Amino acid sequence: MTLTFAQPSDDKAELETGPAFTPRFDEKGLVTAVVTDARDGELLMVAHMNAEALALTVETGIAHYYSRSRGRLWKKGESSGNLQTVREIRTDCDQDAVWLKVSVAGHDATCHTGRRSCFYRTVGIDDGKATLTITDDHRHFDPADIYGEK
Amino acid sequence: MTLTFAQPSDDKAELETGPAFTPRFDEKGLVTAVVTDARDGELLMVAHMNAEALALTVETGIAHYYSRSRGRLWKKGESSGNLQTVREIRTDCDQDAVWLKVSVAGHDATCHTGRRSCFYRTVGIDDGKATLTITDDHRHFDPADIYGEK
Repeated sequence: MTLTFAQPSDDKAELETGPAFTPRFDEKGLVTAVVTDARDGELLMVAHMNAEALALTVETGIAHYYSRSRGRLWKKGESSGNLQTVREIRTDCDQDAVWLKVSVAGHDATCHTGRRSCFYRTVGIDDGKATLTITDDHRHFDPADIYGEK
Repeated sequence: MTLTFAQPSDDKAELETGPAFTPRFDEKGLVTAVVTDARDGELLMVAHMNAEALALTVETGIAHYYSRSRGRLWKKGESSGNLQTVREIRTDCDQDAVWLKVSVAGHDATCHTGRRSCFYRTVGIDDGKATLTITDDHRHFDPADIYGEK
């Protein structure tokens, strides 16, 4: 890894319109990453990146994240083969989030459940309770085959 | 506000496929909200919601967030008129993020800078440094008119 990021400016105008990408990592050293499919814009996942994951992603063009549950760098697709090739990276006005437009290899699936997107359920209200309805139940792979029994 | 959310299950299968929406708020009581335009899928913003904001959003169909910088409930568009009417809400596999598909009123702009989306810049590398290029500089409103001088 050779790419490093400068400290964010205290000047709001510089942060919002300046030429330097100076991500505002939170107190845990993370920014939020929103990942959409470059093919049709479908939202695939939301994850987090530390400086190392972000630098590797920008430099290699392959999406890397920081797994909060495992506490380590996570090359997406390292187990499943569903690598993400990054077509474009954007950041938002205050530089605490990035948007990756990616092409998904392998099974064309991003969710560990085997579905294309992690966002396979819609939220509703039923009898005063917040409910979920599965709107995409197509499995592109069997998680037991890829990750083993859990 | 009448809608409340039950505690998330410790059972992964229940969390991933059960019928109850039980958002996994973080230690600050927040979930991540990804907001896209229902019209064409453009990513407009990333924000955060506490239980109150999420309940109000589900109940009223108008997007509410929790402003971390102001430390309070934030009805998006309360100053600018750019209210977001929610067409669909989804959640992800582990229920710590929501995806709102919205229709934007007023200026058809979401960013406080007056641009349609907060993600108006692309990330690149130039001479070994991480750089930003503005790809959408169209202002739908003048922030000074809406928010006053800063």
